[in-house]
Amino acid sequence: MRSPKLFTPGPTAVPAEVLETQARPLIHHRTEEFRQALTASMRGLQYVLETTHPVVILTASGSGAMEATVVNLTRPGETVIVTEVGKFSERWREIAEVFGVNVVAIRTEYGDIASPESVERAFKENPGAAVLFTTHSETSTGALQDVEAFARIAKKNRALIAVDAITSAGAHHVRTDAWGLDAVVGGSQKGVMIPPGLGYVALSPAAIAKMKAGRHPVYYFDLLKAVASAEKSDTPYTPAITIVLALEKALQMMREEGLENVIARHDANASAVRAAVTAMGMELLAKVPSNATTAVLTPGDSAGAIAKHMEKRYALKIAGGQGSLKGKIVRIGHLGYYDEADMYTVVSAFEATLNDLGLSKNFGAGVDALRRSYQARSAR
Amino acid sequence: MRSPKLFTPGPTAVPAEVLETQARPLIHHRTEEFRQALTASMRGLQYVLETTHPVVILTASGSGAMEATVVNLTRPGETVIVTEVGKFSERWREIAEVFGVNVVAIRTEYGDIASPESVERAFKENPGAAVLFTTHSETSTGALQDVEAFARIAKKNRALIAVDAITSAGAHHVRTDAWGLDAVVGGSQKGVMIPPGLGYVALSPAAIAKMKAGRHPVYYFDLLKAVASAEKSDTPYTPAITIVLALEKALQMMREEGLENVIARHDANASAVRAAVTAMGMELLAKVPSNATTAVLTPGDSAGAIAKHMEKRYALKIAGGQGSLKGKIVRIGHLGYYDEADMYTVVSAFEATLNDLGLSKNFGAGVDALRRSYQARSAR
Repeated sequence: MRSPKLFTPGPTAVPAEVLETQARPLIHHRTEEFRQALTASMRGLQYVLETTHPVVILTASGSGAMEATVVNLTRPGETVIVTEVGKFSERWREIAEVFGVNVVAIRTEYGDIASPESVERAFKENPGAAVLFTTHSETSTGALQDVEAFARIAKKNRALIAVDAITSAGAHHVRTDAWGLDAVVGGSQKGVMIPPGLGYVALSPAAIAKMKAGRHPVYYFDLLKAVASAEKSDTPYTPAITIVLALEKALQMMREEGLENVIARHDANASAVRAAVTAMGMELLAKVPSNATTAVLTPGDSAGAIAKHMEKRYALKIAGGQGSLKGKIVRIGHLGYYDEADMYTVVSAFEATLNDLGLSKNFGAGVDALRRSYQARSAR
Repeated sequence: MRSPKLFTPGPTAVPAEVLETQARPLIHHRTEEFRQALTASMRGLQYVLETTHPVVILTASGSGAMEATVVNLTRPGETVIVTEVGKFSERWREIAEVFGVNVVAIRTEYGDIASPESVERAFKENPGAAVLFTTHSETSTGALQDVEAFARIAKKNRALIAVDAITSAGAHHVRTDAWGLDAVVGGSQKGVMIPPGLGYVALSPAAIAKMKAGRHPVYYFDLLKAVASAEKSDTPYTPAITIVLALEKALQMMREEGLENVIARHDANASAVRAAVTAMGMELLAKVPSNATTAVLTPGDSAGAIAKHMEKRYALKIAGGQGSLKGKIVRIGHLGYYDEADMYTVVSAFEATLNDLGLSKNFGAGVDALRRSYQARSAR
C-alpha cells in the first residue's frame, strides 16, 4: 500500500539524505548558516551548468523562472524566435505573447527537433530578432536539441540565446560558458533531484547588460535585483529555505559523484532503457533522444492503461503524454537519482505490464536488452 | 552549538509533526494523494480566513502573492489607494508603481496606523480609485489596522479592498466574508507555521469579476487560471509539493485546536509579552499592537547588540528593525506555534540580555509581569 516510486521526468525521486535535511528545525534566512547554504547552492549550480557567471535562485516553479527570463530579457514589441518542438517549448511562445513580444515560431512535429538550418532561416527572415528562446531537452517528447549550434547562429546574428535546460541540467552537458548561452533556466524537481519549489537562471554578462538597457516592468521576478542580492548571499524576497537546504545537499552529492560520472550514469541508464524498449518491438518518439526521459509510442490508446497498471500493480509512477500526445505515449523518467537496479525495476515492470494487459505475449526481451546494454558499456 | 530557535515574525518555528511530513518519499502532484492534500489545504485556508470563496495557493513568497494581487486586480493607469504605515505596506505601493498604476498613499509615522477618516478623505479626493490596498498586521512595526472599517469605506466608494494578512492570519480574526474583503494575501512561513515557499490569496466574487473585465498581462501569477485549476484540485504549474503537504498537516493541527483557541492563544501570548516589556520600563512602537509580533523601542542604538547576544548566548533568534527603524527596535515574534513556556523562554532571555549588556540593572520585573498577565487571564 506504499505510495508509488517516481519514474517521472520531474518531480523525480529524492535521495533519503536530501529528504532528511527537510525534517530539521527551521532556520532563518538572515543567518550565516543559511547564507552559506545559499552560496554553496549557487556555486553548485554553476558547477552543473558549467559557468562562472551568476546563477540566481527563485522561489517559483520552472515556469516562473521561464517568465522571469522572458520579461527581463525582452521589451514589449521586440521580436524573438522560438523553437517550438513540444509542449514546454510552446511555453516560451505563450509567455512572450502574453507580454506583448512578437514571436517567430519554428514549428516541428512533436518528437522532431529544430534544425540549425531552420534557425538560420528564421534569423535571415527576421534580421532584428533580439533573442532566440529554445529548449535543450523537450520533456514532453524526450527529444534533445543542438543548443550549441543554435548558440553559434544566435551569436552570428547578434541575438541572445535563452535555453530551457529544465530537464537537461544534470543529464547532459550544458556548457553555458563554452557554448555562449546567455540565459539557462532550470527547476529544482529535476536533475538536481530535490522537491519542486525553486527555479534558477544562469545569466551571461550580455544578458545582464541587455536587462540594464531595458526590459518589461518587473517586481518579484526582477533578475537584476536577484543578481545584486546573490552577490551578498541573499535573495530579494524570503526564499523557500528548506528547499535551498535540500539543494545544497543534493548538489554536494553531485559534486562527490562528479559531473562527468553523473552524466555518464544518465547516458548509461537512458541508452539501456532505449535498447530495452526497442527490443520489445516498440518505437521511440524522439528522433534524437534526451537522457532525461524515454518517450515510447504505445499500441492504440493504451498509454493511460499502461501507466495506471504500473502504478496500481507495481507502485511505480511513469508519465503519460501531454497535449496532442495524450494517450499515445508513455514517458519513463530516468532523470536524477537512479541507478542500474532502478532501471531493472522499471523496465521489467513495464514489460510485465504489457504482458499483464495482453498487449504483448512475450516477456524478457526488454530486460535482457537492458542487461546487454549495460554489459557492453562496462566492457568498453 | 544548536541552531537558534526562531522567535521572528516569520519564518516562525515549525512543529515537529509538520517537519516530519517533509522527510517522506516525494509524491507526484498528479496523484489522488496530492489532490486530496491540496484540497484539504485550500479548505483549511478558507477556515483560517473565514471565507467560503476560493483561496488559491501559489508557489512563491508572500511578496509574489502580493504582486499577483496587484496585477490581477488592477489595470495600468488605474488609481488605487494604499495605506502606507511601514515597510510591508510600502510594498503595495512599490508593486503598483512598477506596473504603471497611479498610487495615492496615506502615509503615517512608523508605528501608527491609518485612521478611517484618512481613508474616507483619500476616496473623497480620488473618487475613481478602484482598489484600496492595505495591511492588516504591519510586520515591520507590529501595528494592527482596522481593516473592517476600511472595508466599509471601500464598499461605500464602490472600490475593492485587498488586504495583506501575511502576519495577521492565524493571530487575529480575518473575517474575509463578514467584512467584505475582496483579496486577502498570506504567506506560508507565518501563522500557518510551515516553511516559506508558498503564498495564498482569497478572492471574492467581485474580485474575480474585476479580473475578468481586465487586468495586466499575466502568466505565472494568473489568478483566474489558478482559480480554475483549484476547482479541479490542481495548480497551473508544478506546486511546491512538500510545502503543500506541510500546510495540510499544520492546518489540520489548527483545526484540532480550533480557530478561536488559536487566536486566544496568540492574544494571551502577545498581551503577556507586552505587559512584560512595559514592566521592564521599555516602550512599544505600535500604538495599536498586533498579536503577531511585539516591536520594542530599545535604548540608543542597542537593538543590533541585543539581537546578536540573544542569538549567541541563548540560541534564540529575534528580529531587528527594518528601513528607518534599523537599530532602533527589536521585534519579538509570537506568531505561530508558541505556548506560555516559549514566552517565558524568550522574555527571561530578553531580560537577561539587557542585564548582561549593562542596559538594565534589574532582572525579573518582565518575567513577573508575564506571569501576572497569564494568571489574570486564567482567573477570568
